[in-house]
Amino acid sequence: MRLQNLLLSNIKGYNGVIHNVSKLFQPLNITPNEATVKNNDMTSKSQRLMIDNGVIQPINNGLYHLLPLGMRAFDKLINLVDLHMHNVGAQKISLSSLTSAHLWETTGRYITAGAELFNLTDRHQKKYVLSPTHEESITHLIASFQPFSHKRFPLLLYQISTKFRDEMKPRFGLIRAKEFIMKDLYSFDVNIESAQLTYKTLVDAYHHIFSAIGVKYIDVLGDTGLMGGTLSHEFHYPADIGDDILLICAKCGSGKNKEVKMDDLVCQQCKSSDFHEHKGIEVGHTFMLGTRYSEPLKALYSGPEGKAPLVMGSYGLGLTRILAASLEILSLEDQLRWPALLAPYKCIIITPKEGSKESKLLGNLAVELYLSMQSLPTCQDNVILDDRSSLTIGKRLLEAKRSGYPFVIVVGKDAAASPSLIEVHNTMSNDCLKFTKSELLDYLGNNQKNYDILEKIHINL
Amino acid sequence: MRLQNLLLSNIKGYNGVIHNVSKLFQPLNITPNEATVKNNDMTSKSQRLMIDNGVIQPINNGLYHLLPLGMRAFDKLINLVDLHMHNVGAQKISLSSLTSAHLWETTGRYITAGAELFNLTDRHQKKYVLSPTHEESITHLIASFQPFSHKRFPLLLYQISTKFRDEMKPRFGLIRAKEFIMKDLYSFDVNIESAQLTYKTLVDAYHHIFSAIGVKYIDVLGDTGLMGGTLSHEFHYPADIGDDILLICAKCGSGKNKEVKMDDLVCQQCKSSDFHEHKGIEVGHTFMLGTRYSEPLKALYSGPEGKAPLVMGSYGLGLTRILAASLEILSLEDQLRWPALLAPYKCIIITPKEGSKESKLLGNLAVELYLSMQSLPTCQDNVILDDRSSLTIGKRLLEAKRSGYPFVIVVGKDAAASPSLIEVHNTMSNDCLKFTKSELLDYLGNNQKNYDILEKIHINL
Repeated sequence: MRLQNLLLSNIKGYNGVIHNVSKLFQPLNITPNEATVKNNDMTSKSQRLMIDNGVIQPINNGLYHLLPLGMRAFDKLINLVDLHMHNVGAQKISLSSLTSAHLWETTGRYITAGAELFNLTDRHQKKYVLSPTHEESITHLIASFQPFSHKRFPLLLYQISTKFRDEMKPRFGLIRAKEFIMKDLYSFDVNIESAQLTYKTLVDAYHHIFSAIGVKYIDVLGDTGLMGGTLSHEFHYPADIGDDILLICAKCGSGKNKEVKMDDLVCQQCKSSDFHEHKGIEVGHTFMLGTRYSEPLKALYSGPEGKAPLVMGSYGLGLTRILAASLEILSLEDQLRWPALLAPYKCIIITPKEGSKESKLLGNLAVELYLSMQSLPTCQDNVILDDRSSLTIGKRLLEAKRSGYPFVIVVGKDAAASPSLIEVHNTMSNDCLKFTKSELLDYLGNNQKNYDILEKIHINL
Repeated sequence: MRLQNLLLSNIKGYNGVIHNVSKLFQPLNITPNEATVKNNDMTSKSQRLMIDNGVIQPINNGLYHLLPLGMRAFDKLINLVDLHMHNVGAQKISLSSLTSAHLWETTGRYITAGAELFNLTDRHQKKYVLSPTHEESITHLIASFQPFSHKRFPLLLYQISTKFRDEMKPRFGLIRAKEFIMKDLYSFDVNIESAQLTYKTLVDAYHHIFSAIGVKYIDVLGDTGLMGGTLSHEFHYPADIGDDILLICAKCGSGKNKEVKMDDLVCQQCKSSDFHEHKGIEVGHTFMLGTRYSEPLKALYSGPEGKAPLVMGSYGLGLTRILAASLEILSLEDQLRWPALLAPYKCIIITPKEGSKESKLLGNLAVELYLSMQSLPTCQDNVILDDRSSLTIGKRLLEAKRSGYPFVIVVGKDAAASPSLIEVHNTMSNDCLKFTKSELLDYLGNNQKNYDILEKIHINL
């Protein structure tokens, strides 16, 4: 196949595809140091770095394409979320993006959501909204069947899908976009007590997901706002560009969004009145909705005592926002840094420069290393070869660091020495280690652990 | 966890989640035999069976939700497609659904696509289309960078995403819907010869995908229609409800869509003039676009002889349509039958009826069987337990067959006899076999093979 590296024909018995940087679609858009930054929409570090490194591409105001590196990271986030949703017995579905405006009129949100709703009509003049969230759709779905027996509940349904919001001022790239990808889950229970258990289960699952991503986050009591209901929790990544102000108790660490009404400035957990303010980017929000939607849309269950409205919860994760906000927090000014679990590739191998002494002496060492690494469970499908050997090692090393590959592996001069040593640059710790091939494989075989430790160190700073 | 089967607490060392029918969200909607069918939108077998068996739920005209069984099947189709796209070196991206109307005006398709385009404006009166396909977007994406070096090509980019089409008359359920999920791939080459190689690679990949799905299909020369370009191939599932008429050469089997202009009725492959007509559902379409889009949108490469427009191809697979059309072809009038690879679950285990003699004698045999089957690579994560033991085995067996589980496994009277025998109903062949537990595990360990054979037998009928 033309699309594979020709070197492969020299490697007996390998018929897989090699990931090569020469074939990677990663349009770099690095602003020269001396240039004036023209685009005043570049309002956040993650936005700039994701665009400069070919992770996303901006189109119109608030609209973006995910390019291959962004998509790979995003698919990893989806896998993580699917796993945790599966673990709590949630079932995956896909709800139509076009929702009848009539349903939103029934719950009153057609008016309250106002100008943020994208509206459209079909050729028969039927009115739709491009759903920014799916409480109306899912409640209508449940209501469209005869009331289910109370034995069927709790029922947890979720989807991962594109949402639309006609933002007045989209900004910060994927952090506040007009089109974004959310995981939204809806729960149905037969009474408040059961709904509270479900609520706790989901909040716990969110803690597991955010812990696995590994970026420091805060959970606070939230504002129910337009969504309605009786209780909400917000998950935030603390960041200077955050739109929300969080009040965190200095004594016990519990907190709330400043928008939540407080009778007095006393912590409900520990009665302290010493609060710190943090700015936060909201990345997840759970709502105990009660019967806010099930009553108007008639989503009932049938129990021993007759029919009654289901008690609902709604649980959102802003997936594209989580991706961008993680990068906002972890990255340096001129270098992307990915959460360990979400890095598009964990390792990049830089081949010797074409025509150099090493190039002649080392033959296919870089490709052989690639194949050995692929067979490590910790690296499988997570290695890419920078085969652009017409470029200097230095230039490729710089690019690799800027793109944030956690491990940059250089097959260079030291590899042609005796003993043959391979350089490993850890972009999280900024270390450079030298290993023989077998030491390197041992190191990378344990690399999830190494990386986790470095990740934690970084976060605790 | 409340959401898991309590029986689990009896199984030492197992901390996974059991898939239980009692927890599966599969709202059945079986029309009683004596009832008049009210809904005259039920225009196809797959549409009726998918709705009746809780695979999809219709909302408005031409809009559907995918329910958990449909979503599981669909996720398997996505995995299959991702695998084959990866094998040809295609890179996955995600393009925004909202596309500036201006881009469609530039290529002239804003007019030619006409009333099938969903149009909308944002709060600043900027005009968008809800993209039914992404030639404009992707070409604009490539054009938005400095011309890439010719060395970068061929470049293959694809996505799996929701598309929108304001159909005059949506029908046949997911086969012609207003909102559907497509895999669309776009290729970029520096000259015709290279583009032709890419075209052949992609057509081959489509053959691999359709062969893997295992439903008999036909590929024919297609009509380039509104898309433009110089050459197209269509992949069809032959079916009475198909909208296309295909002319297939009786001698060599090659064919074309009747819409393709023919100078004379002679097969271009073998010069025969004996054609058969078949109706087909179009499930895939490949287009050699040439510079139809790259010229007006200025997507150029830079080569030794300067800049020139890229030669493009476009390759669509109607994924939701493939799912529905496969079911249309394989299913019986009153029984879903899934392609082996796409069945939401491969096996269902029916537990003994509560209070029966077997129930007392067999204890947890069904659950133990579930766990043993889960550890077979051929069944892993593909088994569900029908734990609704208050229902008779007969009723659950009927439901399981109707839903099209390939293997329905009954732990009933024979299991309490000596030797203990377990029934396996193969819904594709309509066989019923009886095995000891270890024989059953052997049989299922090879079941992909067994199932494949049965699938082929069925298709050849």
